[in-house]
Parts: sequence; structure tokens; C-alpha cells
Amino acid sequence: MNSFGRVFKVSIFGESHGKEIGVVIDGVPPGIAVAEKDFEKDLLRRKPGKQGTTTRIESDMPKIISGIYNGKTSGSPITIIFENKDTKSCDYEKFIDMPRPGHADFTSNIKYKGFNDLRGSGHFSGRLTAPLVAAGVVAKKILDKIEISALLIEAGGASDIESAVKSAEEKKDSIGGIVECRIKNIKPGLGEPFFDSFESMISHIIFAIPGIRGIEFGTGFKAVSMKGSEHNDAIISADGKTATNNHGGINGGITNSNEVVFRVAVKPTSTISAIQKTYNFKINKIEELAAEGRHDTCFALRIPPVIEAATAIAIADFYLINKIY
Amino acid sequence: MNSFGRVFKVSIFGESHGKEIGVVIDGVPPGIAVAEKDFEKDLLRRKPGKQGTTTRIESDMPKIISGIYNGKTSGSPITIIFENKDTKSCDYEKFIDMPRPGHADFTSNIKYKGFNDLRGSGHFSGRLTAPLVAAGVVAKKILDKIEISALLIEAGGASDIESAVKSAEEKKDSIGGIVECRIKNIKPGLGEPFFDSFESMISHIIFAIPGIRGIEFGTGFKAVSMKGSEHNDAIISADGKTATNNHGGINGGITNSNEVVFRVAVKPTSTISAIQKTYNFKINKIEELAAEGRHDTCFALRIPPVIEAATAIAIADFYLINKIY
Amino acid sequence: MNSFGRVFKVSIFGESHGKEIGVVIDGVPPGIAVAEKDFEKDLLRRKPGKQGTTTRIESDMPKIISGIYNGKTSGSPITIIFENKDTKSCDYEKFIDMPRPGHADFTSNIKYKGFNDLRGSGHFSGRLTAPLVAAGVVAKKILDKIEISALLIEAGGASDIESAVKSAEEKKDSIGGIVECRIKNIKPGLGEPFFDSFESMISHIIFAIPGIRGIEFGTGFKAVSMKGSEHNDAIISADGKTATNNHGGINGGITNSNEVVFRVAVKPTSTISAIQKTYNFKINKIEELAAEGRHDTCFALRIPPVIEAATAIAIADFYLINKIY
Amino acid sequence: MNSFGRVFKVSIFGESHGKEIGVVIDGVPPGIAVAEKDFEKDLLRRKPGKQGTTTRIESDMPKIISGIYNGKTSGSPITIIFENKDTKSCDYEKFIDMPRPGHADFTSNIKYKGFNDLRGSGHFSGRLTAPLVAAGVVAKKILDKIEISALLIEAGGASDIESAVKSAEEKKDSIGGIVECRIKNIKPGLGEPFFDSFESMISHIIFAIPGIRGIEFGTGFKAVSMKGSEHNDAIISADGKTATNNHGGINGGITNSNEVVFRVAVKPTSTISAIQKTYNFKINKIEELAAEGRHDTCFALRIPPVIEAATAIAIADFYLINKIY
Repeated sequence: MNSFGRVFKVSIFGESHGKEIGVVIDGVPPGIAVAEKDFEKDLLRRKPGKQGTTTRIESDMPKIISGIYNGKTSGSPITIIFENKDTKSCDYEKFIDMPRPGHADFTSNIKYKGFNDLRGSGHFSGRLTAPLVAAGVVAKKILDKIEISALLIEAGGASDIESAVKSAEEKKDSIGGIVECRIKNIKPGLGEPFFDSFESMISHIIFAIPGIRGIEFGTGFKAVSMKGSEHNDAIISADGKTATNNHGGINGGITNSNEVVFRVAVKPTSTISAIQKTYNFKINKIEELAAEGRHDTCFALRIPPVIEAATAIAIADFYLINKIY
Repeated sequence: MNSFGRVFKVSIFGESHGKEIGVVIDGVPPGIAVAEKDFEKDLLRRKPGKQGTTTRIESDMPKIISGIYNGKTSGSPITIIFENKDTKSCDYEKFIDMPRPGHADFTSNIKYKGFNDLRGSGHFSGRLTAPLVAAGVVAKKILDKIEISALLIEAGGASDIESAVKSAEEKKDSIGGIVECRIKNIKPGLGEPFFDSFESMISHIIFAIPGIRGIEFGTGFKAVSMKGSEHNDAIISADGKTATNNHGGINGGITNSNEVVFRVAVKPTSTISAIQKTYNFKINKIEELAAEGRHDTCFALRIPPVIEAATAIAIADFYLINKIY
Repeated sequence: MNSFGRVFKVSIFGESHGKEIGVVIDGVPPGIAVAEKDFEKDLLRRKPGKQGTTTRIESDMPKIISGIYNGKTSGSPITIIFENKDTKSCDYEKFIDMPRPGHADFTSNIKYKGFNDLRGSGHFSGRLTAPLVAAGVVAKKILDKIEISALLIEAGGASDIESAVKSAEEKKDSIGGIVECRIKNIKPGLGEPFFDSFESMISHIIFAIPGIRGIEFGTGFKAVSMKGSEHNDAIISADGKTATNNHGGINGGITNSNEVVFRVAVKPTSTISAIQKTYNFKINKIEELAAEGRHDTCFALRIPPVIEAATAIAIADFYLINKIY
Repeated sequence: MNSFGRVFKVSIFGESHGKEIGVVIDGVPPGIAVAEKDFEKDLLRRKPGKQGTTTRIESDMPKIISGIYNGKTSGSPITIIFENKDTKSCDYEKFIDMPRPGHADFTSNIKYKGFNDLRGSGHFSGRLTAPLVAAGVVAKKILDKIEISALLIEAGGASDIESAVKSAEEKKDSIGGIVECRIKNIKPGLGEPFFDSFESMISHIIFAIPGIRGIEFGTGFKAVSMKGSEHNDAIISADGKTATNNHGGINGGITNSNEVVFRVAVKPTSTISAIQKTYNFKINKIEELAAEGRHDTCFALRIPPVIEAATAIAIADFYLINKIY
């Protein structure tokens, strides 16, 4: 179950404080130039360190250990690995007894019967989005002329994002945000009804990213207040271009050649320095908890390249299925 | 690609105006009582005929053609079929040249190179949700004490749904709605990170339903305007119950034993009687189109049992994967 | 689990004495001409009625219920159904208590906890190979210039097959056979290492056919007595043709453009009229059993078109994966 | 496509002369003790160095980089990596122009359009069976009381294996062998008809191992010369035990509680020191080739632990699917 895609297939492994995390990418056509430096740009965008993000230092770069030969994809599975450094595991021990509210501490403990690695949230850590971004870089190489661009358009309910972050930081609190993703020059005909509609595959992988609470395509939730006559997008040229784009580039689960637009709701970071109540399972009592681990005030700031990567992975799979490449 | 699920696996086939439509359900444990009358209730809820819905008559009941022996599941694949009756194909011919705005006419034509069956929207018809509902009835039998309940809580932006529908009908227009789905008594521990989070699987199947534009879990898009300290749900008892339920019963992609809550945006019906503009591909010109085919003013009215069925299918798969049953 | 293939995907359903049996075929490209009469030839070759085969009459022809529009594939899933007629269920009742040796009676009963349909062997019946043959007919249409030809080259250890069958029939006994399958004009480059080698996929589907006991490619089991210098096939031209073909057209799990050759061992029919011993589970005692149901003296006689169909299905999937078509 | 299994899922990556090779194992239940030393025994059995095997030294031990926490499986994907050492790539350069007979040189070149890594046979190297053996060690831990035992019962057509190897070595030639695998104490009821029969899954993974040419279950190819009355195994006790075991523990694709028996034909090593003819693609001419790279005289000697591992992986998947564990 730990993989996504049917032809362009991605598997992610590792824990935040284990030796290494990584990704195996299967199904990549041979002959595509891939160098370790190609990963820099997107990984830097995702990297912590900016205001409002955790102080954990991830200086590491990806290490390609298979699937690339003489600088090009060989057709065999590509494996990319990141070493885990700067791990401070001591911070996390108490969360075994006192699960952090909003976190996977309690649920992963139930699911894995107490054997899971809770350090740094283990396999549930946002750190696992680094290999996802790496896989996205490979996916983008298949998507020749497509432009995928995700932007944080709102944070903590405000469009002045910088001041919203600052204000939350001062209160030792956290905020969420809305990321809008736009895809230009995408081919029409992508989407495999009944079950693998374009939106099905995009939402599937987007909700794999930690902290996502909602997704909407085109006018999305606003569409419910529109009349059909307003919401319908009139086709105005032979290539399928429409006068409006309320459907966000998709009809019947299939791309229609217009720009694809979707928005994603990112929740406020669960780990906050402010004191919170939670259940202490050791003594069976509600207690107060202060989380001192490093954390993002607004991890939505770092999410756009992750959304782009996830989107690119889903679309690369559609491209290969539809023999575009 | 035309199947959903890993153990409880559903495949849907058929076209609106073909001979029959149906569903194959694989992975159902043997020994579960299933009778044709068990399907009546949910199929009736989905059925057209009420105010605001199409006048197409679907009097047919499902025909079980495999997998049930002596009134019980045999362990072999279950196949359920519905005959197509009351099909008026003549209404649909012009949509080949003049694709209806908001519809799959154009995209399915591109995808299938003009060989698809456009009559009644073919494989893209809302009629295909009948076998989905049938599969949901089987899924619900696996989900013993779970209660899945979907309700239309808003239509056309209003909570007085009846009058909103009436008003749209008078204008020969259509409206959408918001369906809220609540799942009580669900087991904790469901969801398979990294890629098959609980939300990933639910959203995947929900977006397979025609006309869905968005989905949000818990407080969803409202969560982005909350502080972490407000949004975090404090655990207050040893079974994982929380004081609030902003996360909608899910943490880290895994159910946490609280009620699961999600909302779905259903678009206004694309087919409307009012005159619309679209491109005439035969004469390469924008023209006016009036759709005289039967259609729902607000198909969101019929969506709740479909949402429930899709949800039940996804959860039944999680139950079997997690050996609950 | 009841499906085979990654792009060209086949699901089989039904029981021997149920209402209908059938197949859903997903992933077929649109625009391929398919008529019900196209199925006649291969289904006739598989049909019982000839000497040495069961007297059950299968006069029925396939009914296409979805996926074909105006005589061509539409791109949506194709469903083909066969009605079950001439079913004499009374013959099979005693096998619940006294499982037939060599049959699935005991194992299916264990697996499905007694809820399976034993009539006519239910889902385990050779009758289920009819929809497999139907799917093979569709698969062959994708495999343009390929010639797949399976022949019974030996029965009951003898090459004079007719007399071997006659002799077994006289003794109320049964015999098996060896079917050799040869594939001409197959494209090179088919096979997806590591796990989906060409032989892996072929053997996977061949062993789904009831009664298969072994498979070997090229010189197969004889290769173990050869020296490497004898077994290696020298490449003698730029298109990969080899002087010998001990590898049966496959190297490293990938087709090499030479003729693909494999042989399949088909067991003697388990159901025989001669008296046999088995365990009576009702009275917990070994007893004698005489099976009076209709059966083949040598069902290997009917297997060649089934082997061809299974082979065509596996290769059609490889063709679509490799974008040949 | 580069994975095997539905619940216990294995993905293999790497090239013989790349940085590292490895395996990701998904679906392993939490709480199973796994230490790096557990891998020693089976890896030593597979290791080269004995008479008749290559002189390449694989001193390395597996490195677990994810999925094990405090000495136990955590429930997250397990990744095991092997470093590649002692790689002499210079030996392999000429095989680009002059593919070795019997090898994947030509076919992988066609498939991957010349971009594949030919050094040491790249992803097609027998070295890739090291991670397979590692995954088998994990699989065996799930198969509590099962005994899986594979033995080389014949080499070069002789049962005195040692002298057969010696003789081939003297002639700078190579030989193959037959490996018999026996599985004791396996649960009945394993196998998922129609397409995932027990034999289907075993043969699928066995043919993923480089150099396998055939597989037969029970009496296998000899069954075709038996009468039904001889071949049928009479059930003699309530637990399904049979008087004979011609079916090798499987009926109707499902295990029947008797010992499972199958035999595998392993071809003679393709790489031999003796001079062979092949096509020189650079100058378009048949030429003579002498392969000086290290190689096994009889790699069948090292295959038994690989067969056991592959078998364990397939059965572990069946156990988890059938909720045994």
C-alpha cells in the first residue's frame, strides 16, 4: 500500500530519526537526464530555516543510489536517499505517554500496537516530504512543457502572510493556510473513469501529505451557490478553451485543456509551544503538555513545492498511461 | 484502472443506454447473508422521480448473477446487474457536434477519439452510481456497527432546500449543494500511510462520483483561519475521545475513534433547459444549445446514498485490510 | 485479486451452475472492431462435445453488455456474459460430504468455510475458461501480426492422441497431455524486470487455468542437462535472431524477437467414472465414490484455445504497457 | 511493476555495479523481532566463493535503514540495503557491442534503448537476488511453523553434483540443475482463484529469479503420462491428508494441507570462458567472444536459498491476505 501510481510508481520509506529516508521510483522511461543538482531548487523551497519554520537543519542533498547511469535514467528503478542528521530524539520521549493533540502520536500507536518509531513523528514526519519532492523533480522531467505552480495565497485567514506568521509566532501559537495550485499547458484527455478520475488521483496523493484538510477544484465549494447557467463553462474554440473556468480544467473527471486549478487547505501546525491539555495514558489522567521540540509556526509556508511534487507525480503517471512522452 | 480497493475490490461497467450496467465485487468474505431486497432502501433513496430530479424511470431492481449461493456470499466475486430501460437515445445525438457545457461530452470525445457512447452520457452517466450504491449495500454488511449517514445540508447556497430547488426549476436552471457525511462507531487505526491515508482513499472514491468539486474533513477549509491552539483536539479519555473534533476523527491519516466528518461540494447540474452557448465542431462556430433531455434540477438531492455507498466501500476495504471482520 | 493485467485488465466472475458467468475487460483502446461472431471460432475450439470431452452442451454464444458501441470498442470497460444452461445440479450434492479426489471440493470448502457453490465445481469449473477465451479474442485484436498457436502434442504419454483417448475412455479412466504454445512475430523488449518478467506473467495466468501442473520455456527442463556452450543461443543477425532457440525467445525475462515457445503439462481429468476412495466427512470414514457427473476423458483436448487466450491476454498487457499499439 | 505481493509487498532496486542495491518491504506487521544477524545464514548459503561459483567477494552484510525500531518491526516500510564492493566494471564494456549469448545484454539494450547499465549485468545481475534473500528472511518470520526447504537434486543431468561441476569447470563450460522445494506445515486454504492461484503466485516470483526455465508442481510433467485413477490423491483423514501427493499439496489452486512440492529448472550459466559466437553490432558481423568476467560454473548451486526466499515471500503474502498471523 506504500506506493502511488500505476506506471510512474513511487514508494516512500523511512522515519524522521532513522538512518535514512528515501524513495523508489519505478516506471521512468530510459534516457532522461537527471543530476543530483536538479533537486536543489525544489528541495531548497521546501527546506526549513526561514521565518515561521522549524530550526531543524536539513543541509543534506539527495543521494541517487540506483537507476541513473551516465547521468541518464536507465529504465531500472530509481532510488534516492537522504541521510538523517541533526536529530534530537530526547525531545520526543514523553509523547509516548502523552500524545500531542492533533498529532499522529495516538493513532499511530493504536495502529502499530506501540511498536512504531515516535521519534520526530517517525514515518509520519513532515520530513518524509523531502523524498516526495525528489520524486516530483523526476516527474517534472516527464512533463515537458507543463507548468505547475503552487502558491500560498492565504495564511491564518489573512492574505498578508508575513504579518500573520509573525503574530502567531509571538503568541507561541501556529497557523494554517490555503495553497492554490495552477497547471498550465496540460494535455486534454487525462483521467481514467470510473474510479481513477483526474480529481481522484490528485486528491489521493495530496491527502497523503501530512496536514491537509481539504481540496477543491475550480470554483469548488463556491460552485454550490452558483446556478448551472453561471457555473457551466461555455466552450469557445475547437481546442476546448472555455469562456470561464469554473470547472478548473476538468469535466467528467478528464482534463479539458484549460488551466487546471485546485486549492488545498493546510491546517495550523499541531505542535505548539503553548501549553495544551492531553491524556496521560500512563497515569490515566488529563494533564498539561508543553511541546519543546522544534516546529514550524506555519508549515504551510513550506508546502507549495510539496503540492507541486505530488501533482507532478500524479500527472506523470497519467502521461505515461496515456502514452504522452 | 477501473477498480477501487485492495481487498474489497469494486469494478463498475456499463453505459447509460447500453444493455446493462453493473458491478463486480471481489474479496467479500463468505457467509454473509445478501438478498435482492436488501438493495431496495438505498436504491430508492438514490432513485429519480422526486421533485427536482429527472423524470427518467428506473423501476428496475438489481439482478445478482454470481457470488451468492443459498442466500449467502460464497467467497467468489459478486456480480450485480441492472437492465437499462426507458432510454431515449434520440435526445443525445446533437451533443456529438455540440458538446454540452460542463459535461463530459467534449473530454470523453477527446479521450476516446470519438468512439465513446455519448447516449445518455454513456459510461459518464449518473446512472452508473446505481451499481455503486449496490456495492455499498454489500460493503455496509461488513461494517457491522458502523453508522454512515450523509445529508444534504445546503442547496444553491441556502439551507431551505425545497424552496431553492423550486426557484431554480422555475428558471429552467439548476443548483448544487453540500452533502455532509458522518460516520459513527468507526474503529480507530484505519488508514495506511504514506500514500493510502484514510482521507486519500475516501477522497479518491468520492471524486469518482460525477459532479463532485470539493471535499473537506473536520473543520476543513475553516481550519486555515484557526490557531493551532484552537484547532488541536485535546484527548480526554483513554479510548482517544477528544474534547473537540476539528480533525473530523482523523489524525496523521488514521482514524482516531471519534466521529468521522467530511463535507462534499456537489456542483449544479450541467444539463439545463435554458439556452447556453457552446462550440459547434461541425461548422466551427459558437452556437446556442438547448438541452431537452431529462435531467435533475438538483442532482445533489440524490447524492447522499451515493456518498454513503462510496464511503462504505472505502471503509470495508480498510476493515478487511486491518482484519476487522 | 480476481483480476489479471496492469493496463489490459481482465476480471472473471461466475459459477458453473449460477445464472451467468462473464468477464470484464478494462483498458482496451477505443476504436477496435469487435462483433459477437468474432468469438465463435475460439469458443468452438474450446467447446465440449467431441470424443473424449464432456457431453454438457454449451450452445450459448457470448452476450456483449458494455464497452462496444456501433461495433467498435468505446474505451469503457467491456463486459461479456454467458448464460448457464443445461445444468444438472443434482449430480453434485454428494461431493459436499465426500470431496472428489484431485478436485477443489475439499480445498474450496476449507477456504470458503462451506459457503461456496459446489454445483458443477462452482467458480472452479472449467466452464470459467469460456469467458477467458472471450477475453483472449479481444486481446488478439490488439496483437496485430502476432500468431499464437497452441497444440496438444502428447496425451497420456503418447503422440497418437486419438487412440490414447479411446483407450482411457474404455477403462472409464482419464488422461492428461502436453500443450505446446508457439508465438510468432512477437515484438522484442516485452517483460518488466525485476518481478514482472515475461515468463512470470505468462506462468501466472497459465496456472490460473484449472488443471495445469507445469510450464517450461524453450528447452525447459531439458536445459539442465545441457552445457552452457550448447544451451546458449548465438545471435546471428542485427535483429536479434539466434542460430538455435533454446531460450524459447526470452533472455533476462525479456522477449528477444525469436519465436516464443513454451510447453504446459495438463493433468488427467480428476472426475472419473471408475470407483475411487475418499473421505466421508459426514461419518468420518474412508468410503468409495463413483462420480456420475459428465466429464472429459481428456480435457487437455479442449485446452489449446484456452492457453492461447491466456497468452494473448498477458501479451496484450505487455503491448499496451510498452506502447505498442 | 517492480513490486510483488498484495499485502506483504516487496520492491527491489539497484544495479550490480551501482552504489547500492536493496529492497523495500511493505506490509510487515509491527512487533516482529528482526536483527541484522538474522540475515547471515541465508545470505551465506547464497554467497559465492564455493567451488563452482564466481570468485566475486560479497563480504557485505545488509544494512537496515528503515522500518525496524528497538529491534522490532515498526509497521512502516522496511528498507534493507547492500553496498556494492569488489566491482570490476572494465570486464563488461565489450558486451555493449557484442551481447553475450543467453544473456540479457541484447534484450535489455533493446528495451531500455541503450541507456541501461550493462556493467555486471546491471539490474539483471544475479546479485539482485541478495535483497530478495533478505526479504525472504523477513517473510519467514511471519511463517511461524512452516518449513521451506529447497535442495539442488540434480546438476548437469547427474545426481553426483560435485563431480558434474568439476567436469564442467575443467571444460571452461557451465551446467544447470534442478532444485526441489518442499514446504511442510503450510496452512490449507491458501490461493485466490481465479487469477491468483497458489501456483500462479509461486511461479510468478520464481520466474523473476534470473535463469529459471521451468517449474512443475507435484508430479508435474510426469502427470501427463498417468491415468486419472493413478494421479488422483485419495483423501484419507479429516484434516485433508492424502494417501499419495501427486498434486503436490494443491487442488484447484488452493493448498490442501499436504506438503507442497515443486521443482524448478535452472539453466546452465550463460557466461562461460569458452569461446562463443555472437553478433558484433558495431561492425555488423558475427564474431567470436570470450567472456573473462567472473562467473559461476553452476549458479544453481547458489539458487536454493533464493528459491526458498521467493517462496517465503509469496506465502507470507497469502498468510497476511488470509489473516493467518
